[in-house]
Amino acid sequence: MADHPEESLDPASWDDFRAHAHRTVDELLDWLRGVRERPVWQPVPEEVRAGLRRPLPEAGAGLAASWDEFRRSVLPYPWGNVHPRFWGWVNGTGSPSGALAEFATAVLNTNAGGGHQAAPYVEEQVIDWCKAMLGFPPEASGVLVTGGSVANLVAIAAARDAFDPRISEEGVAVAAGTPVLYASAQTHSSVDKAARLLGLGQRALRSVPADAEFRIDLAALERAIAGDRAAGGRPFCVVGNAGTVNTGAIDDLAALADLCRREGLWFHVDGAFGALAALSGRLRPLVAGMERADSIAFDLHKWLYMPYDVGCVLIRDRAAHQRPFTVPASYLSREARGAAPNDHDPGSLGPELSREFRGLKVWMLLQEHGIAKYARLIEQNVAQAAYLAGLVHQHAELELLAPVPLNIVCFRYRGTGPDGPALDALNRELLIRIQERGVAVPSGTLLNGRFAIRVAIANHRSRREDFDLLVARAVELGREISAEG
Amino acid sequence: MADHPEESLDPASWDDFRAHAHRTVDELLDWLRGVRERPVWQPVPEEVRAGLRRPLPEAGAGLAASWDEFRRSVLPYPWGNVHPRFWGWVNGTGSPSGALAEFATAVLNTNAGGGHQAAPYVEEQVIDWCKAMLGFPPEASGVLVTGGSVANLVAIAAARDAFDPRISEEGVAVAAGTPVLYASAQTHSSVDKAARLLGLGQRALRSVPADAEFRIDLAALERAIAGDRAAGGRPFCVVGNAGTVNTGAIDDLAALADLCRREGLWFHVDGAFGALAALSGRLRPLVAGMERADSIAFDLHKWLYMPYDVGCVLIRDRAAHQRPFTVPASYLSREARGAAPNDHDPGSLGPELSREFRGLKVWMLLQEHGIAKYARLIEQNVAQAAYLAGLVHQHAELELLAPVPLNIVCFRYRGTGPDGPALDALNRELLIRIQERGVAVPSGTLLNGRFAIRVAIANHRSRREDFDLLVARAVELGREISAEG
Repeated sequence: MADHPEESLDPASWDDFRAHAHRTVDELLDWLRGVRERPVWQPVPEEVRAGLRRPLPEAGAGLAASWDEFRRSVLPYPWGNVHPRFWGWVNGTGSPSGALAEFATAVLNTNAGGGHQAAPYVEEQVIDWCKAMLGFPPEASGVLVTGGSVANLVAIAAARDAFDPRISEEGVAVAAGTPVLYASAQTHSSVDKAARLLGLGQRALRSVPADAEFRIDLAALERAIAGDRAAGGRPFCVVGNAGTVNTGAIDDLAALADLCRREGLWFHVDGAFGALAALSGRLRPLVAGMERADSIAFDLHKWLYMPYDVGCVLIRDRAAHQRPFTVPASYLSREARGAAPNDHDPGSLGPELSREFRGLKVWMLLQEHGIAKYARLIEQNVAQAAYLAGLVHQHAELELLAPVPLNIVCFRYRGTGPDGPALDALNRELLIRIQERGVAVPSGTLLNGRFAIRVAIANHRSRREDFDLLVARAVELGREISAEG
Repeated sequence: MADHPEESLDPASWDDFRAHAHRTVDELLDWLRGVRERPVWQPVPEEVRAGLRRPLPEAGAGLAASWDEFRRSVLPYPWGNVHPRFWGWVNGTGSPSGALAEFATAVLNTNAGGGHQAAPYVEEQVIDWCKAMLGFPPEASGVLVTGGSVANLVAIAAARDAFDPRISEEGVAVAAGTPVLYASAQTHSSVDKAARLLGLGQRALRSVPADAEFRIDLAALERAIAGDRAAGGRPFCVVGNAGTVNTGAIDDLAALADLCRREGLWFHVDGAFGALAALSGRLRPLVAGMERADSIAFDLHKWLYMPYDVGCVLIRDRAAHQRPFTVPASYLSREARGAAPNDHDPGSLGPELSREFRGLKVWMLLQEHGIAKYARLIEQNVAQAAYLAGLVHQHAELELLAPVPLNIVCFRYRGTGPDGPALDALNRELLIRIQERGVAVPSGTLLNGRFAIRVAIANHRSRREDFDLLVARAVELGREISAEG
């Protein structure tokens, strides 16, 4: 087969590549530095979408052409979450240092799935730091994953197999009675996904009503558990929320910890962003009880503003963490020396094996900035949410639709008509215009059947004047839509 | 709380940051350019490991100090898979263009989990290109994941729920009889992991013996299926290998496709690296039948040498792909316009939601190099494996332990003593010395109970002289160890 000379993907000229890299760095840093001056978001034009339906290229167009395509079809149409006025869903902002750390990650291109190399040791340190951030004991287990969804999956898998250690060998059907788990109706859909994927089934997840502040109703939870036990169901886990996606509500985690101990249930906390409130001495009381959980899932690309993607799951019981994921593999022969051995084996702690060294950026940025700065930024976002809530509260044409315990503000344009579908429709249109005019990107949600414009602040670039602008433009556009009606 | 001025993670001086970024680019490109001159791998010294057990930093040390730590504790101790003589496990090499694309990915820092933005459209194109590469129909579904392990998990989840669509709602226990799946004993451990995680249980995976060429024994497979049916088990899936991890063996995929159609079973192909043999007209006959599979899992960070991490799963039936992962989520409100809507919704196609824009590098590099170049590089690695096999075959002191159908060579130092534990011990020590002397990183495996040094070539930097060097040094070190004995 060797009828052509050996070739590689390295550049024909390293000097030319280096010059291209320097131009690219300048261009992208300029782009990032100027982000505030651009619209937060703009739609992808149909001709650009059409250009993204080309056949697989047979011949190479070269480095310059590939970057020209990037400039034409990608760079102008990002999601917008690096912009100071992006507050949709829960998205982090990233940072210039984070991007440079990702370049280093990709130059090293080390497979961080295990082995005697720096990567697993660095990630072990990152996990130890995560435990320290959340008040978890040093002897707990943990692993870095792509985000909160996989973190929830790993934790609930561990809970399932701790409940009945035969399941990973013999399957869910081995458990006498249906294993059931509980979470409030405000819980993130990744918990539903985990129940489906783990073979428990969607119905095994009991959706417990929330109270007026969108926290789990503890009495309803106790009744549900008792009812299931009476009916032959087998409760095994309660998922508490440290910051719901809709409103940032925080369940009474101390009460859940007590209940789980009393009932002999695994206590998992979904703290995708809210868990990190623990970094602030002032906010920490909000998540009190979280440190007593059996497991915590949270993201570092949200409220630590790390580049996508990196999340973490911490699990108190090491053996329970490993049980779902430990399988024999003859080709991974373990010697006492050489490149293979390592005490920290991420492959036995989650669904992945080969993977990116996603802990490097976390390790470097925590050293660069120090955790006190992250605590201040989290407090800053919470203060900004309170500030926005105040602006909404003071404005006669706006109203809050939920309490603001953390960093999420749900509001709507009140208009002059009655509550009902027309007002929902007005606010849906208002949300879209706020996005389409490039003003800001909030997202929308339904709260008690009413449509809310939802501002979730996990953004280190936001300033108070950004919220002044949002309110001014929301009122202006609300009036505009009302006038059209 | 706003008793300190608003701050951000952006640099105090963009000019200083830019200068730092340029120095870093120069340093890292020099590092990469010089990789051939360094040892492939070296152990992490105990004092460096000790330095990676520091408490969470309270105050920031600044950008320069953070990079100094990187230079001290990380850069000298990578896994080694960017080096021309790294052939351990199955690891890709990455590339300079790939690293630069990752920098762009992290500057954009777009959350590629969905939405009306460039990222999902780019990834949809990448998936269409993946279908074209493997001969899959354009109407098939697919999603980019972190790697082969998650790709296998997604495919087997789809197979499970296609077998009994009630499972995602009601759990595995709803299926009357135990759902069972089949794969050869040479199959990757991620398939075991998937069986455990999906609630089927490890025992649901029947390990079918392999033949002398390490391919699944078709007669044994048919007997196993018939036996399970007779015993009330419920066969639902066969996993075929397009390139086993141990030896690169390729199951008779056309025969498996026939068998699965006859038996009404889902046919999944684990083609982590081997699926990409389809890129080469000369190698494509080896994987004939793969294009008839219900699903294919494969990696792009292995034999397409993309930076970690990116894998892909293709699933013929769109509805089957979505079934395990589609859950309602009120906070993800869908409007007809604005930032939210998108036809390609990766969150309903796998366990992740928020995540990195991992398709960007693939899209850019396929345009830069063209697929024909990747096909040549794959052929080059296969030719190198044949070349190494020839060297081993010709050398009296070495012997091959398995056929070399693709890019993996399993051999050992034969020595002068008899077969048995002593010879295994000699070869284990030989493997470690090859690694510790910085010569090369092969890995080890067991084949029919005998220890083999295993060279898996998914490396665009390897040259023929690298294999000459490996053989010369293996013989020299083999003699050295024998003499000590």
